[in-house]
Amino acid sequence: MKAKRSVRLVDMTRYLMENPNTVVPLTFFANRYDSAKSSISEDLTILRKTFKDSGTGLLETIPGAAGGSKFIPSIEKDEALLFIEELQSFLDDNARMLPGGYVYMNDLLDRPSILRQIGRLIATMYKEEKIDAVLTVATKGIPIAQSVATLLNVPFIIARHDSRITDGSTISVNYVSGSQRRIEKMVLSKRSLPAKSNVLIVDDFLRGGGSAAGLCSLIHEFDSKIAGISFIAERDYDGQRKINKDQYTSLFKIATNEDHIKVSKGNFDWKVFDNFSKKGN
Amino acid sequence: MKAKRSVRLVDMTRYLMENPNTVVPLTFFANRYDSAKSSISEDLTILRKTFKDSGTGLLETIPGAAGGSKFIPSIEKDEALLFIEELQSFLDDNARMLPGGYVYMNDLLDRPSILRQIGRLIATMYKEEKIDAVLTVATKGIPIAQSVATLLNVPFIIARHDSRITDGSTISVNYVSGSQRRIEKMVLSKRSLPAKSNVLIVDDFLRGGGSAAGLCSLIHEFDSKIAGISFIAERDYDGQRKINKDQYTSLFKIATNEDHIKVSKGNFDWKVFDNFSKKGN
Repeated sequence: MKAKRSVRLVDMTRYLMENPNTVVPLTFFANRYDSAKSSISEDLTILRKTFKDSGTGLLETIPGAAGGSKFIPSIEKDEALLFIEELQSFLDDNARMLPGGYVYMNDLLDRPSILRQIGRLIATMYKEEKIDAVLTVATKGIPIAQSVATLLNVPFIIARHDSRITDGSTISVNYVSGSQRRIEKMVLSKRSLPAKSNVLIVDDFLRGGGSAAGLCSLIHEFDSKIAGISFIAERDYDGQRKINKDQYTSLFKIATNEDHIKVSKGNFDWKVFDNFSKKGN
Repeated sequence: MKAKRSVRLVDMTRYLMENPNTVVPLTFFANRYDSAKSSISEDLTILRKTFKDSGTGLLETIPGAAGGSKFIPSIEKDEALLFIEELQSFLDDNARMLPGGYVYMNDLLDRPSILRQIGRLIATMYKEEKIDAVLTVATKGIPIAQSVATLLNVPFIIARHDSRITDGSTISVNYVSGSQRRIEKMVLSKRSLPAKSNVLIVDDFLRGGGSAAGLCSLIHEFDSKIAGISFIAERDYDGQRKINKDQYTSLFKIATNEDHIKVSKGNFDWKVFDNFSKKGN
């Protein structure tokens, strides 16, 4: 049954949001709504402009026989700045101090609305990279990995410190924990990552960088490549980290001093959040 | 600046999908688009019908001063049946057999598109319950918890077998592992769940029901209530489970027999997936 423009606009918005980073052919929509391709093209122009104006993301047009429309969720500089500042003052609370200079952040990583925004930030920071999978280590990094992977529409895979029967065959690496100078082990299910994948590593907290270095070794063991490493927060750290400064991005820097927490912006490059709505079509 | 109907429809769809289970006042949209409330009402009627016809969910109208529109994501019987059957044949694969009668399911729980559908199924099964939080135990249940919590727009909280420094103060319970007859411990950060919460428990796999019983004890220790217990899969089990048949729902039943896997539908009630589009407004 032929669908009206109003119905098409609502349903196309829903469809593209539920299938991000996927090329949807014009003919798919034309058939779905029993409408002319020219009408669908006009609909897509309205969607493209509205997504751009509201800072929701880019609706790319992929030309050619295998072409179509691809929705790339992202976040603009203004909204990114506002969100980072909100989180900064949310974290900047001495009640979060835990013994040993640790910081309570669980309430940040259990709220879907916050996780969605964090996902948009990280997806935007790595928008120029080809990413086939998101990798993290259990357990605090899992919600971040899921959030980023949902927007990129790729699998997220979880390394562990102990292998479980349900992982099947695994590949393991040993690494030196940066902050505690212990030898630790990390395993990943052999079936979880195909060779030649481009992998984005995400985690909640960077201290010595041992876990991140372990995840990098795992990626090499799977004959795959590191597309990037992203943390929510990095701590001030005395000594040599296991990963280099230019290898990772962080949203926040956290310093603790007796009973005080100081939260500042992380090392990411603000330029990645250029307001895409200000650019041309 | 006054927004056209076409722009409003696209942006309202996006906004409601990003803020499910939240009452959005008519005035919010009227101000956002500099439009008359009567026009916004007409827009919402189009959205309501389109969401209903495509099986995306219900757009409820909440009357009164604190009223507005609330988008409740759900799944219809036809789509639910199709998805369950697809997953069933995906799981029904002897290559998934692991030693000890375990079944490899990681590749199900690392794909955002599958997790979203599982989330819609579980959210629909518990749509009549008031749910304030989703609870699981690390680590396999986390992606399911996040997926359900995202659609319900409530926090998801993660119990663990070992407490971490970063959890702060914790409450712990001991429980008897159903399948292994060992005493185990489970901890939850004290700050993570306010008293008097209604909590939905989710997990990947039901064997003896020990973990689920442990999660139930934890909920009682937090002076909260159990809104339901939902598993992706339950195994055939000889002996008395730690939870009763009428306390939980499962999407699949899995039986293994030497080198063979048999997957059948779980114990959930198909009636919860009644086609809501067939009902009146």
